[in-house]
Amino acid sequence: LGGSIALAAAQKGTFEVAIWARRAEAVVQLRERGFGARASTDLAAVVKDADLTVLCVPIGAMPALARELVSLIPSDSVITDVGSVKAPVVAELATQFRTHGRFIGSHPMAGSEQSGLEAARADLFEGATCILTPEPATDREALVTVADFWRLLGMEVLELTPAEHDEIVALISHFPHLLAATLVKTVAETNPHAFGFCGPGFRDVTRVAGGPPEMWSEILRTNQQAVRKCAEAMIENLRGIVTLLDRPQPMTDFLSEAKAQRDRLQLRK
Amino acid sequence: LGGSIALAAAQKGTFEVAIWARRAEAVVQLRERGFGARASTDLAAVVKDADLTVLCVPIGAMPALARELVSLIPSDSVITDVGSVKAPVVAELATQFRTHGRFIGSHPMAGSEQSGLEAARADLFEGATCILTPEPATDREALVTVADFWRLLGMEVLELTPAEHDEIVALISHFPHLLAATLVKTVAETNPHAFGFCGPGFRDVTRVAGGPPEMWSEILRTNQQAVRKCAEAMIENLRGIVTLLDRPQPMTDFLSEAKAQRDRLQLRK
Repeated sequence: LGGSIALAAAQKGTFEVAIWARRAEAVVQLRERGFGARASTDLAAVVKDADLTVLCVPIGAMPALARELVSLIPSDSVITDVGSVKAPVVAELATQFRTHGRFIGSHPMAGSEQSGLEAARADLFEGATCILTPEPATDREALVTVADFWRLLGMEVLELTPAEHDEIVALISHFPHLLAATLVKTVAETNPHAFGFCGPGFRDVTRVAGGPPEMWSEILRTNQQAVRKCAEAMIENLRGIVTLLDRPQPMTDFLSEAKAQRDRLQLRK
Repeated sequence: LGGSIALAAAQKGTFEVAIWARRAEAVVQLRERGFGARASTDLAAVVKDADLTVLCVPIGAMPALARELVSLIPSDSVITDVGSVKAPVVAELATQFRTHGRFIGSHPMAGSEQSGLEAARADLFEGATCILTPEPATDREALVTVADFWRLLGMEVLELTPAEHDEIVALISHFPHLLAATLVKTVAETNPHAFGFCGPGFRDVTRVAGGPPEMWSEILRTNQQAVRKCAEAMIENLRGIVTLLDRPQPMTDFLSEAKAQRDRLQLRK
């Protein structure tokens, strides 16, 4: 995601883009993609004049990077992140940047199954949604800076509290991922021969189970409270729905209601 | 489905196609689609010389239609159906046609969300799979007749026992449908605001929940034993998977295994 953000910002903004990467090979790749002298493994050199810093590392790597960053950035610098879980990230980073720097949590909901610099695309954000998660203590000027940044990249910006963000992404993304993987496991254990008969329906229901396991394991761990709540609600609902299997009218009513809700979805990019 | 079968058979076969429809308006529509004098509401007239009869009515309407049919068809006539549940249909129809007519269960796995004659397409079956469900007592000559018919329409023909067919379609189609509808219900009950944030992942996971409720209610009722078994296995697996939420390595292993199984799928049309 970091590569796409850098490409999009360099193309659409009037500001200077500098990129820090942990590994020297990544810096070589970044130079090949046109980031020249402003790509470096030297964090201090990259962030020392930063007006806005976007943290694009796995959620688990954020606290340590933030601790390094806080002594290197200007004191009024704005920091945001791209983590797909917000309550724990915001709690940690807002604390770290309380007196030095101003933190705003972001979740740009764009991306693809591919990762790495080769997959970076400047147009990845056009028409997609970015959720910002301000808190009562959040600096409003910094919030506007971050919102304007994502809008410049082509995104629609919405605001949620960190807790509501995490509940919503658990419902529409994290738990459905777990559910799809569990369905694949259930088929494999019940009758693996069934995999030979799958058509478009099963393909679509299970598509998200093809995502990168380590990244998803970390997301699920970080958002475990909301995901567990979804799983418990789902189990309870499944138990109830199973009792409708021999009751055609209530089952039809349930399927009609689900169909109506599904048909009303205003899908985002 | 009946309209598509008639169009495909008329286009690809050298035999004469006759169609019975319950409603006079359907016969008018059939004539407009080119079925002329061989479309009728008079069942006896349509089937009296039939070598092969394909029953394309909802599963619940099959026993009554079969009872009517048995006295009207030639005694060596071959009968098949297109029901997506096989054990109860085969048990009922094989009994009805035991001494008069020869019954073979078929499940052509082709179709679309659309229904009705307007949606009929002669190429619907090209490259798709048809499962036949012979039993030990099944007439082998009739089995060849039915297999050849579906192959003529462009289908790959596979054989399963009725019970294994029902277990497999429960796993890859009927239960995933119930699961998708239950996920929509769970989101609606937990936080309906979440529907405003859905992207391609949620769209794909829940797509099958858009199917026709009455038809699906009947399918689920007819295959309730196998669907209930899937639901119980799924609930048990979900309970186990939830305990991995704070155990990153076992969760990564589980997701990796599901991803590998998903990536290996040889998808059928």
